[in-house]
Amino acid sequence: MSSVLRCSTKLRAARLPAARALSTTARLRAEQPFFPNEPSAPSVKTAIPGPKNKAAAAELDEVFDVRSLNMLTDYTQSVGNYIADLDGNKLLDVYAQIASIPVGYNNPHLQKVAQSPEMTTSLINRPALGNFPSADWSHILKTGILKAAPKGLDQVFTAMAGSDANETAYKAAFMYYRQLQRGGPQVEFTEEELKSTMENQGPGSPQLSILSFKSAFHGRLFGSLSTTRSKPIHKLDIPAFDWPQATFPTLKYPLEEHAQENAAEEQRCLQEVEELIKTFHNPVAAVMVEPIQSEGGDNHASPAFFRGLREITKRNNVLFIVDEVQTGVGATGKFWAHDHWNLETPPDMVTFSKKAQTAGYYFGNPALRPNKPYRQFNTWMGDPSRALIFRGIIEEIERLGLVEHTRITGDYLYAGLQGLAQKYPEHFQNLRGKGQGTFIAWDTPKRDAFVAKAKEVGVNIGGSGQSAVRLRPMLVFQQHHADILLESIEKIIKLL
Amino acid sequence: MSSVLRCSTKLRAARLPAARALSTTARLRAEQPFFPNEPSAPSVKTAIPGPKNKAAAAELDEVFDVRSLNMLTDYTQSVGNYIADLDGNKLLDVYAQIASIPVGYNNPHLQKVAQSPEMTTSLINRPALGNFPSADWSHILKTGILKAAPKGLDQVFTAMAGSDANETAYKAAFMYYRQLQRGGPQVEFTEEELKSTMENQGPGSPQLSILSFKSAFHGRLFGSLSTTRSKPIHKLDIPAFDWPQATFPTLKYPLEEHAQENAAEEQRCLQEVEELIKTFHNPVAAVMVEPIQSEGGDNHASPAFFRGLREITKRNNVLFIVDEVQTGVGATGKFWAHDHWNLETPPDMVTFSKKAQTAGYYFGNPALRPNKPYRQFNTWMGDPSRALIFRGIIEEIERLGLVEHTRITGDYLYAGLQGLAQKYPEHFQNLRGKGQGTFIAWDTPKRDAFVAKAKEVGVNIGGSGQSAVRLRPMLVFQQHHADILLESIEKIIKLL
Repeated sequence: MSSVLRCSTKLRAARLPAARALSTTARLRAEQPFFPNEPSAPSVKTAIPGPKNKAAAAELDEVFDVRSLNMLTDYTQSVGNYIADLDGNKLLDVYAQIASIPVGYNNPHLQKVAQSPEMTTSLINRPALGNFPSADWSHILKTGILKAAPKGLDQVFTAMAGSDANETAYKAAFMYYRQLQRGGPQVEFTEEELKSTMENQGPGSPQLSILSFKSAFHGRLFGSLSTTRSKPIHKLDIPAFDWPQATFPTLKYPLEEHAQENAAEEQRCLQEVEELIKTFHNPVAAVMVEPIQSEGGDNHASPAFFRGLREITKRNNVLFIVDEVQTGVGATGKFWAHDHWNLETPPDMVTFSKKAQTAGYYFGNPALRPNKPYRQFNTWMGDPSRALIFRGIIEEIERLGLVEHTRITGDYLYAGLQGLAQKYPEHFQNLRGKGQGTFIAWDTPKRDAFVAKAKEVGVNIGGSGQSAVRLRPMLVFQQHHADILLESIEKIIKLL
Repeated sequence: MSSVLRCSTKLRAARLPAARALSTTARLRAEQPFFPNEPSAPSVKTAIPGPKNKAAAAELDEVFDVRSLNMLTDYTQSVGNYIADLDGNKLLDVYAQIASIPVGYNNPHLQKVAQSPEMTTSLINRPALGNFPSADWSHILKTGILKAAPKGLDQVFTAMAGSDANETAYKAAFMYYRQLQRGGPQVEFTEEELKSTMENQGPGSPQLSILSFKSAFHGRLFGSLSTTRSKPIHKLDIPAFDWPQATFPTLKYPLEEHAQENAAEEQRCLQEVEELIKTFHNPVAAVMVEPIQSEGGDNHASPAFFRGLREITKRNNVLFIVDEVQTGVGATGKFWAHDHWNLETPPDMVTFSKKAQTAGYYFGNPALRPNKPYRQFNTWMGDPSRALIFRGIIEEIERLGLVEHTRITGDYLYAGLQGLAQKYPEHFQNLRGKGQGTFIAWDTPKRDAFVAKAKEVGVNIGGSGQSAVRLRPMLVFQQHHADILLESIEKIIKLL
């Protein structure tokens, strides 16, 4: 992370007194609302979906698949943490466009960015960034995407969304792996390689692999989907590469009561990873992992596990890619979730999307730039308009100290959820995400009903995996929102 | 295409008198410039790249791969058909961001779209379109993307760029194919399918294929790259699916002198396609084809060839997908290049990107919607901001009659190039694209030098394949630009 972002976090951290629990509450109480024009509470005026939503959904259905529709949204009436629908309902939104809105609906600073002359230019003169970047592209990167770069990574390849961010990272990994095998960037391709790749055969198109984890989610295009192992419905009928999957640790909660067991579980999983790297029939070029398996059910592992992964990948000359598409940009109380790990050497690549509102992968090792131009290339290679939005988001995060804020609010929220878990143990299993900002989840037997009923009490909430309720509030989620959420959860439980 | 777009074309066509050659010239002469503030001619003030460009490129290189850099662009100074660099050079741009700028740099109408309240809202409140589309998403689609829908296709799945437009179309094809095999949408997946797909194995992850053509370009992610057969550098070191490729016809020019030979060549290729569909070891779910192979060297085939393909795919119950990423949105003198073919039944899917400034695939058959929700899904599923830009582009195309305009200007330009080809036969082989608007190309032995020297005389021009110069002017390219281009080409030839 840049010195500016780091510095701001340090300053804030320094100001916090030792007695954390007390100071946290005090600090949160003193906080002004980030959005003075937000509703003070959710308002539910109709059944959801209401009559206007139903009519509009039927109209949309004529041309666009609406079977995954959650609610048709009136974005002009949504503000801060509140999402509005067509029937005048306003819900506290702790799902936030599948974890992708960081600084609130209709954020005034982003409004200014959207209305800037720079934005107009980038919207109407869309460059092919690899060939004709704008004169200020370097400046936009350095004051935006790269200002938030993870420690040790100072380069970026820009993309459009999580799937292609991950796939272009995989491509970089394969090219790097083969370059090592060949003996360096200066070694020319053989005639056989040039010929066989045009037929999709080895050695030009080698049968290499990316190792990912069971329950992982890394996207839905053909390469990324081959590393996605979340649910059959995501994968069925789509041809996939024969790539290996390792077991992701299944931790037992509360963590402090299962320390030894969990450590053994993580050790077992690490051994499996190393075994697969050594023996899988399609050689492994990279290990891909999420800091918290997000779509797959909010599965956590310890920093020690991830440090172990980093060691195994180094020992076996395999790249280590961290998928921060859902965990990145502050929600875990660090700008990047892998900042929690205290790695000795940074990941080889870190991918981002969602809350960044643009996408791509960071890297540091110059050898990860392919040895020739046009190997990693496409027409647009991202979108400067969305890069400008990310820059505005970073500015807003800095201005309001939102990463530190989210850490503290997360602690407050977690404490409240612990209270509820004690009161309603049958509805709260495996509460997890302590110390991970607001990136909190728990399992509940009637999860789908829970998520559906939430709307009745004015909360928009999501699930993940088979039985988890996942919280994905924005970074502008404050104590008073947490209080509303906690009360609402109790109401939902009573409705079940 | 919508009735509105069709109607406007008809009206213009009706106004054209019978003596086409004369009337065309007369009409073009009478035309007002679309951009009154455009330079009247290119101006080249420094060597290209000039000193400021070199310095800026070195700075960008610190964080972003610039080896594919063509020129750093000052978009604030670019206007209409002219692209400006940092050193004050203004070049006539007939490459147009790799064929992706339709209505000119800094188009005033798009400026209004970019500065509209709708745009601000869509930029700062980015929806997860499958879950939380905005209330006006249906309206945006119907007055934009779908207004330009190819005949017979009234549905859309939106995406971000050409690669994922093509890959999501492939996914739809695979799901459809397996559904037919299973016996319909109501047939449930088997336990074996559910289990095997989580291991990337059949039958859940079946070894099906997409048939594409030699020299084709369909994108660079793992699925799309498996159908791309343009150049080794696009494919090397990246694992690929074992999918079949058929020979794309190699036509001889001038077409009128080789009619019989070319027809036989196309027949031979069609037979190869049918043979592959019947015998390839990984069953073919769809045939993917570009109307003009654009990256692969501007390879054309006749409408009869494409009608033949459509027949073969129907006869063999295989889907027919047309990749209009580069050919779509007017440049061939029809809104969609496949409008030239007079198909009896429309393609099953048509993909788009580039000049649309957004991406996706059109379809008509409701069975191409997967049988369950969340099978074809991702967080953003496109970008409403870019959908608004496409709507603005369609409005501008209608207002100025740019499809018909491009057809007529293309005829004028082609006639001029024929003159040059007669004068400089050693520099002009296989001139092609007659009657295809401004989508014109020819082969030349010193292609790379030709493209490089073009900048010295003030023209930004691209190549394709091994030896083609490809023209990709914008739709606002007019006769006076064609005159400058023709003169410039003669100057370039003299410099070689």
